[in-house]
Amino acid sequence: MGRRLKFIVAYDGTPFSGWQSQANGNGIQDHLEAAFEQISSEKIRVHGAGRTDAGVHALAQCAHADLPEHRYEARRWVAALNGVLPPTIRIVRASFAPLAFHARFSANAKIYRYRIWNGEVLPPLEHGRAWHIRDDLDLKAMATAAKLFVGKHDFKSFAANRGSPVDDTFRTLHRVQLRRTGHVIAIEFDGDGFLYKMVRLMVGTLARIGLGDASPAEIRDRLEAPRRIISGGRNAAPASGLLLVRVRY
Amino acid sequence: MGRRLKFIVAYDGTPFSGWQSQANGNGIQDHLEAAFEQISSEKIRVHGAGRTDAGVHALAQCAHADLPEHRYEARRWVAALNGVLPPTIRIVRASFAPLAFHARFSANAKIYRYRIWNGEVLPPLEHGRAWHIRDDLDLKAMATAAKLFVGKHDFKSFAANRGSPVDDTFRTLHRVQLRRTGHVIAIEFDGDGFLYKMVRLMVGTLARIGLGDASPAEIRDRLEAPRRIISGGRNAAPASGLLLVRVRY
Repeated sequence: MGRRLKFIVAYDGTPFSGWQSQANGNGIQDHLEAAFEQISSEKIRVHGAGRTDAGVHALAQCAHADLPEHRYEARRWVAALNGVLPPTIRIVRASFAPLAFHARFSANAKIYRYRIWNGEVLPPLEHGRAWHIRDDLDLKAMATAAKLFVGKHDFKSFAANRGSPVDDTFRTLHRVQLRRTGHVIAIEFDGDGFLYKMVRLMVGTLARIGLGDASPAEIRDRLEAPRRIISGGRNAAPASGLLLVRVRY
Repeated sequence: MGRRLKFIVAYDGTPFSGWQSQANGNGIQDHLEAAFEQISSEKIRVHGAGRTDAGVHALAQCAHADLPEHRYEARRWVAALNGVLPPTIRIVRASFAPLAFHARFSANAKIYRYRIWNGEVLPPLEHGRAWHIRDDLDLKAMATAAKLFVGKHDFKSFAANRGSPVDDTFRTLHRVQLRRTGHVIAIEFDGDGFLYKMVRLMVGTLARIGLGDASPAEIRDRLEAPRRIISGGRNAAPASGLLLVRVRY
């Protein structure tokens, strides 16, 4: 009998076309499904908790897959998958889960971290891992503004379209935290769900506030009078600064 | 009249064939010289403090170059060079120096840091930036052994050959420091000079001691009865964990 494998996967998003399966086969999901097939000689579908965009990284994305038969222990799967996956995708750990578990639909909350590198010259080892902003940022204004996102809101104004529009654009943010360590400003978002490009659009607005190009009132206005973005998320912060930290169940 | 530009350069060593000019044009020196030529339309030779190997990174390599004429201020050169260099090579800062200054020969000391990632699964974002060692390491034994390197010694047994052998294989290590932060073990070496692959050969030995495969006595023996390595540095720790932190003048 088959069993459902729940696994935690980390990746450097730089070389991939995002989480989701792509025609070019370079989605992280594609690489995972190819690895499962190489090991089991069967087509196995992988379901992830969140579809991260091209260039977005993950410390602990969560996914599940139904294995055709219970051949190996879960930790054998970790070793076998890591043996065939590229080193920029790693299975961190795995366990068997009840069939009622679904990586995406069972998720209660996700934590995303966004990294800004604020200074004159971006260190080469930060390339592809942070948003480089040269000009001074008013951190106090950003931290105050960030608090406006906390709570249940209609985040329609902070969502880009991805083909089919989402009906319910209400989401609850449990916590938004901004911290500076040297040149790095890390903004962490803990919420029950995130719309397409929502974190990057929130960060884009916070950065404009930090630069003095927008006022916190803009956030209040856009949350109170939500409307669909038509620009396709042009004001979104770049993907490279975004990291899926954890999925809670 | 020409002027000597002293500049600090940082790089992610992964995509390059090391510091030194290569026939394939992919040495970091090649990229820098190409950038100078693109800006000034003249061939300008770049001299670095240390010739790091392929895959070795730098936070602050130091280099100098003689500019044909005093056209721009030093900080204009920083912006101009960064404008044409790949993002994995960055000029951090620059200043004019007296003609007596030589990036390599004026250097008094260099600081290298070596990073080991000690744990079951190497995080994708550490790939190419650390040496992955799965088995538990005895840090106390490594720290005690590391102290044996401090002082003036003939490091012939900790040097690989690079074509022409070096006559004087005596070097002085001012400080060796080992520190663990989570899964990362960082070993920092501060010395007046380093032979070819010397840091990586020292780290390779320290790792074997940490794994219980060698005793600290081996270091003492090899420092007391130095002999040239014939293996070409097979026991050297991988390049990816090494980082040139700073050059002191």
